[in-house]
Amino acid sequence: MGSDNGTRQSGLYDLGVSDIVSGIATGRFAAEDVVESCIERVREREPVIGAWEDVDAEYALQQARSTTGQTTLPLKGVPFGVKDVIDALPFRTAMGSACYRSHWPFFDAGCVGLARMRGAIVLGKTVTAEFAGTAPTSTANPVALDRTPGGSSSGSAAAVADRMVPFAFGTQTGGSILRPAAFCGVVGFKPTFGLYSPAGMKFAAHSFDTIGLIARSAEDVAIVHAALMSDDVASSALAPPRVGVFRSHLWDTVDADCVSVLAATAARFSSCGASVVPVEVPPWFGQITQQRAVVNAYERARGLVGEWQNSRDSLSPQTLDVCERGFKITGQQYVAARRDVELFRRQAMLDLFEDVDVLLAPTTPGEAPHGKGYPGDPRLQELWTTLHMPSITLPAGQGGHGLPIGIQLVGAPFVDQFLLSAARWAERLLNE
Amino acid sequence: MGSDNGTRQSGLYDLGVSDIVSGIATGRFAAEDVVESCIERVREREPVIGAWEDVDAEYALQQARSTTGQTTLPLKGVPFGVKDVIDALPFRTAMGSACYRSHWPFFDAGCVGLARMRGAIVLGKTVTAEFAGTAPTSTANPVALDRTPGGSSSGSAAAVADRMVPFAFGTQTGGSILRPAAFCGVVGFKPTFGLYSPAGMKFAAHSFDTIGLIARSAEDVAIVHAALMSDDVASSALAPPRVGVFRSHLWDTVDADCVSVLAATAARFSSCGASVVPVEVPPWFGQITQQRAVVNAYERARGLVGEWQNSRDSLSPQTLDVCERGFKITGQQYVAARRDVELFRRQAMLDLFEDVDVLLAPTTPGEAPHGKGYPGDPRLQELWTTLHMPSITLPAGQGGHGLPIGIQLVGAPFVDQFLLSAARWAERLLNE
Repeated sequence: MGSDNGTRQSGLYDLGVSDIVSGIATGRFAAEDVVESCIERVREREPVIGAWEDVDAEYALQQARSTTGQTTLPLKGVPFGVKDVIDALPFRTAMGSACYRSHWPFFDAGCVGLARMRGAIVLGKTVTAEFAGTAPTSTANPVALDRTPGGSSSGSAAAVADRMVPFAFGTQTGGSILRPAAFCGVVGFKPTFGLYSPAGMKFAAHSFDTIGLIARSAEDVAIVHAALMSDDVASSALAPPRVGVFRSHLWDTVDADCVSVLAATAARFSSCGASVVPVEVPPWFGQITQQRAVVNAYERARGLVGEWQNSRDSLSPQTLDVCERGFKITGQQYVAARRDVELFRRQAMLDLFEDVDVLLAPTTPGEAPHGKGYPGDPRLQELWTTLHMPSITLPAGQGGHGLPIGIQLVGAPFVDQFLLSAARWAERLLNE
Repeated sequence: MGSDNGTRQSGLYDLGVSDIVSGIATGRFAAEDVVESCIERVREREPVIGAWEDVDAEYALQQARSTTGQTTLPLKGVPFGVKDVIDALPFRTAMGSACYRSHWPFFDAGCVGLARMRGAIVLGKTVTAEFAGTAPTSTANPVALDRTPGGSSSGSAAAVADRMVPFAFGTQTGGSILRPAAFCGVVGFKPTFGLYSPAGMKFAAHSFDTIGLIARSAEDVAIVHAALMSDDVASSALAPPRVGVFRSHLWDTVDADCVSVLAATAARFSSCGASVVPVEVPPWFGQITQQRAVVNAYERARGLVGEWQNSRDSLSPQTLDVCERGFKITGQQYVAARRDVELFRRQAMLDLFEDVDVLLAPTTPGEAPHGKGYPGDPRLQELWTTLHMPSITLPAGQGGHGLPIGIQLVGAPFVDQFLLSAARWAERLLNE
């Protein structure tokens, strides 16, 4: 598989959110030590991975020093990365686009400001596909350098997977958090639509855009999520959940490796006390894929109309293509698709969650594709973005090329805390 | 009533969108003539009204000249204003806040870029309450200079009412479009949530923020709406709609003037062939007001967390207050309120629109309050913002002080085209 994971000696950069927080709280090390270790890791690995748009070592160290003596905060001293469509001081927000090379924001985005308020430390901005779209990036997959890390949150997934930073913000309009997380073998979480403030985020398609998290464990995701929400961390002492295995209308696209990882995961859940039943695919379900495409193209074109009119020459072929398609869609077509999507959201609650707490579904149809030209198929992830349902991917096995394969757990809207508890339950089984 | 409407000689500035478009199409006058007339009107009236943050006469004239020879566009040559929480080149977006005095955007917001693409001409930025909140502005109500024009889209309502511009963009999170429109005696329209792209708009509370329009007739609103949506204008040849009179749980707050304007409007509709029936207030309806307040404060605080942390001294008492309240709300409280609001949206469809096409409701509890310190009560308007339902206010009568009183027409989500047709039907009756 041509992997190069760099030197494997352990360091503070290896620690997740949970260990960093407890290590600082108990005085085993200081925030500054953690930041220094992560910066050292970035220096070593970034030339190979290309996960970052910008890192400011001095600024991060300053933030770390300023946490000394602060009262205990839930994310005190935890460095993080920010996808470069989300504002974070003191960095520019370049959106992966030549149009925004000199675009410096005035304030942190809401999610970044909240993480900072909870004690976390901005390390830098991570590479994004142009406007969180489908254009490829040059970021390498840390697990296999000749493969895509997936998109559009390429840098956030690669930076976390390569242990340069314990968590990072991403955005998901189709599958832009969960797919790169799965391809890179880490955990990606997209909360219920709109839980984290979108203030200071560049829109792609506003009916779907959701800010979320990439980390190396569901436990770490749960800690960051609770801190961002102003909640205590939900208990992980959960009875085994009722799990529904959901194949979707796209089951034919899922390769044998992913089918067998999903089956093994379901068997493992079942043997550990979860009720695991199949959930039938409702007859209308395939329409999600079609209607989402209408809403997505219409909204992306209209969200980029300024760039389209004034800087068309700087836009990638992928962005030009979605704008061209979007501008051809009439308001009536868009409204009909929006209305259908609303109906799908209501019907899905009745058809999918009648007898189960969470759905178990494949995250991607296969391992990360070769090369960097194609960031992978978003359709299995985008179903849940469209339905506004929280979803999380956990690494659950390997494919024929030794690359990571993820499974998705999906909850009903607003059960995020429960979903994260279920994911922590699942994570312990999968790690055993 | 102490009104001063300025010199009443007629001019091109007096024309609405419809007349400007047809006048230019038939060669009766040029876009430049319209822009010049509006600029002249601004020069004359702005010292008295204070509706504008900035106007660029030269830039507007340049735009007008550049439309000469262009193929016919649905908004060709129509000048418009933009609430100063929405990006529009070449202006800064100052958000009504000292923090953003030097904030120049890179591109037009989506709605502005679309209006421009359809041939409309940006005249300038209109005064907004700080971050589209509840802080008062110094804008005068053109109908009575010693009264508030309402907020937070104060400048957009006043500029349109005072015939400085035929339409303007506003935003509504509670009642920030319909209330100032009603207080100033013009038409305010809030579409279904998310119909106009929010790209390039500053968020207040992202679950509710909706971009909409202020104009001097429902017909003009319908023309601009169709152009923004990429639709043809909906026909106004409508059979009389089935109207449900809806008093809401706030009926006690509505004064005698507004009660009698509503009754007279209902009677007029009925005498012109509409079926008019009362729609009962569902028992859960009052909870909207409570749960909206939770979501609003939680989201406003988190959308302004950067400003709160770095520029607290520049924030108004009103913004500080909502942030303080918002930061005290836990994630669990917020999620519970968000979930309730979702349930209200579903239940409202069943309880309100079973037998009627549109609701008829009071826009405000009374005439525009005296002075400029209190921009009025948003509760009657915010019900529909919270429910994501399109709403429009039409001037329908006068109160005891001779000030305008509006009525709201409300539709189910996504029936915007139908609602605008019904509003045009109603407008013709009310103008007879």
